[in-house]
Amino acid sequence: MPLQPWMKLLSTDDHVIEHPKVWTDRLPAKYQDLGPHIVELDPRDVGQINLAGMDVQQHVQAKPIQQWKYEDRLYPNIGLNAVAGKPREEYGFDPVRFDEMIPGCYDPVARLVDMDLDGVWGALNFPSFARFACTVFLDGKDKELSLLGVQAYNDWMLDEWCAAAPDRYVPLMGLPYWDEELCVQEVHRTMAKGAKAFMFPEGPSNLGLPSFFEEGWDRLWSAIEDVGAPVAMHFGGGGRAPQAAPGAPLATVITTFSTNSMATLTDLIFSPVFHKHPKLKVGLNEGGIGWIPYILERADYVWERHRYYQNVNQTIRPSELYRKHVHGCYIADDFGLRDGVRETIGIDNITFESDYPHSDSNWPHSRKIAEETMLHIPDDEAHKIAELNVRRLYNFRPEEAGKPTDPVA
Amino acid sequence: MPLQPWMKLLSTDDHVIEHPKVWTDRLPAKYQDLGPHIVELDPRDVGQINLAGMDVQQHVQAKPIQQWKYEDRLYPNIGLNAVAGKPREEYGFDPVRFDEMIPGCYDPVARLVDMDLDGVWGALNFPSFARFACTVFLDGKDKELSLLGVQAYNDWMLDEWCAAAPDRYVPLMGLPYWDEELCVQEVHRTMAKGAKAFMFPEGPSNLGLPSFFEEGWDRLWSAIEDVGAPVAMHFGGGGRAPQAAPGAPLATVITTFSTNSMATLTDLIFSPVFHKHPKLKVGLNEGGIGWIPYILERADYVWERHRYYQNVNQTIRPSELYRKHVHGCYIADDFGLRDGVRETIGIDNITFESDYPHSDSNWPHSRKIAEETMLHIPDDEAHKIAELNVRRLYNFRPEEAGKPTDPVA
Repeated sequence: MPLQPWMKLLSTDDHVIEHPKVWTDRLPAKYQDLGPHIVELDPRDVGQINLAGMDVQQHVQAKPIQQWKYEDRLYPNIGLNAVAGKPREEYGFDPVRFDEMIPGCYDPVARLVDMDLDGVWGALNFPSFARFACTVFLDGKDKELSLLGVQAYNDWMLDEWCAAAPDRYVPLMGLPYWDEELCVQEVHRTMAKGAKAFMFPEGPSNLGLPSFFEEGWDRLWSAIEDVGAPVAMHFGGGGRAPQAAPGAPLATVITTFSTNSMATLTDLIFSPVFHKHPKLKVGLNEGGIGWIPYILERADYVWERHRYYQNVNQTIRPSELYRKHVHGCYIADDFGLRDGVRETIGIDNITFESDYPHSDSNWPHSRKIAEETMLHIPDDEAHKIAELNVRRLYNFRPEEAGKPTDPVA
Repeated sequence: MPLQPWMKLLSTDDHVIEHPKVWTDRLPAKYQDLGPHIVELDPRDVGQINLAGMDVQQHVQAKPIQQWKYEDRLYPNIGLNAVAGKPREEYGFDPVRFDEMIPGCYDPVARLVDMDLDGVWGALNFPSFARFACTVFLDGKDKELSLLGVQAYNDWMLDEWCAAAPDRYVPLMGLPYWDEELCVQEVHRTMAKGAKAFMFPEGPSNLGLPSFFEEGWDRLWSAIEDVGAPVAMHFGGGGRAPQAAPGAPLATVITTFSTNSMATLTDLIFSPVFHKHPKLKVGLNEGGIGWIPYILERADYVWERHRYYQNVNQTIRPSELYRKHVHGCYIADDFGLRDGVRETIGIDNITFESDYPHSDSNWPHSRKIAEETMLHIPDDEAHKIAELNVRRLYNFRPEEAGKPTDPVA
């Protein structure tokens, strides 16, 4: 069994469902009503939600629906795909109330029990209501509140979630993307409290922010380089999802969501970012890995013949930048783990994810499936993919890495 | 040398540049001025063109620029990337005049000379001005003219281009997509004249047409099934290209253009099309092949867990539909041709393309590079990829397939 029992499986993509008091516990009195809080709505008043271009009927039920209210906006889908523990035949866009979720979705101590069941030792968690790159605060009209909102999320993640098990939760922070100077300050504020990684939207220009090709991020990248933390770009965190064709099932969008990560990777390796910031590391979270060899070969091919008339670095191949700066992750990607293929992706560039509590997760069988899919992989490679790459890339307690002499539960 | 000299290399994606008289030679007198014809413009009056979301300065030159005029609309880029024969350092968005192109771009006899130089025996050619799925006639206000425009293109392709070498050119037809009944009629009209394949936009809903999930194409698919011809969906032929981020070089879009083909494949294998039309064959032209294993594994994974609550066929895996119905093609895709990878893509599902005269082409070295990249492939597989798959899928003169006893030039 290459994934030895003493190896601590670390996930680079799980999700928290923010509990109802994350913001009200932390915001000053004047922002209690304007800041994010949960409201109860009659399901008959809620109607349809729009998801990836499709209208989807909300769960019809007797109980009120819970939604987030932030300033004058309602945010549906608080539990979108928080389906951990349900049979596949019951998957849908539910649940829409906290009492329909298992507590591990929003409670860090209950989550540890679920992680133990799943054989997952530690995890990097992305937001849900706050969106996959914590960009919901870009919506805010009151930017003082927006900043407090980002800080409240980060403080909750640090002081409440990760504090429940500092050796198992990797603190991942949001940033006030609308102001680079505030971003830099938040990097330093949170690093002083133990932050390990920073979210960033994969397609910032879709959110009205500068692209990777424009001025506006160099001071932030320099700050993040200096503190030695990676940037985590979860697919769908850039404000643009693949759009379903009229009449198409959501399955088409779920299948092609990784094309977002392909575009993100391509943008980054043709941009000046890695040339200017040689120590910056970027994770493509939930994007899968099996497509990486194709995109790298294609990027190099395009670079070889099309760079002369374009504003592109003329000396370093895009694939070299990937290898040095970028890592991917996978839930299930037998093709990407194949002999020969995973070496092309790079053993040091692959991490594992569980995606709890979303419907793509194999919870509570993540470790069992990870073991099965790694049967052909040498032990040292399995250890890198399962644990050591995360320890290194996220500077996450490398001294606590699993050892063969560790007692195993 | 697995690609034996007697094997006839067939390309499933080259391009014609329509010569200036394609339509004026064929349209009735009343449409001479309204139908597509070439006009000469002062370059100072043309300014910038918009390409994949980016403003690109037209080639600044002393000579007038040639553009197509169709009804009251001008169509720039007649020679977009028709760069065959130029050094890479001179690539750009030129040329903009016929006298700046080599004649093989628009002359079927000159093209044969270029194909001989390139070691390519035969080719399927897509339009340029008329767009990669011959959809320019959707723009027409006068739909009588639109129909005549499609028919003129098809007649030119059959009577002039392919007639120059019926054993080397595969006749590929456009259709009047705005009217299914007219499409069916055009299928039968052109089949009677020797047509072998039909273009179709990869994302019809982006052009205001029914999607693959909607009603509106079943009579056409049935007609095409009945005549035993494949449907060729060239990437970019659906009216939607990857959009470059602000400030991004076009290289990013060129690299990720295959994400269009990924979306097309995903749509098709989650749609009812192949369930209702079990003999229909679809080519994904210019999309590359190295990404196919990832997308198929991902589609099956999504199908296994997300089909229950969606309007998706519940019994046949998406990857099975791909294997039976779809083929891809590649210019250069060492990863896709690797041992193990190409079997996953399917030896019977892979074809070669040259992409003459675009800047992605390796002309005049296509055969040499094809030989080098197939060195590790058994002869019988190389023959399928280089020639036999096209003979079979396009029903293209299978009796003329290369044989070891053939004399070699």
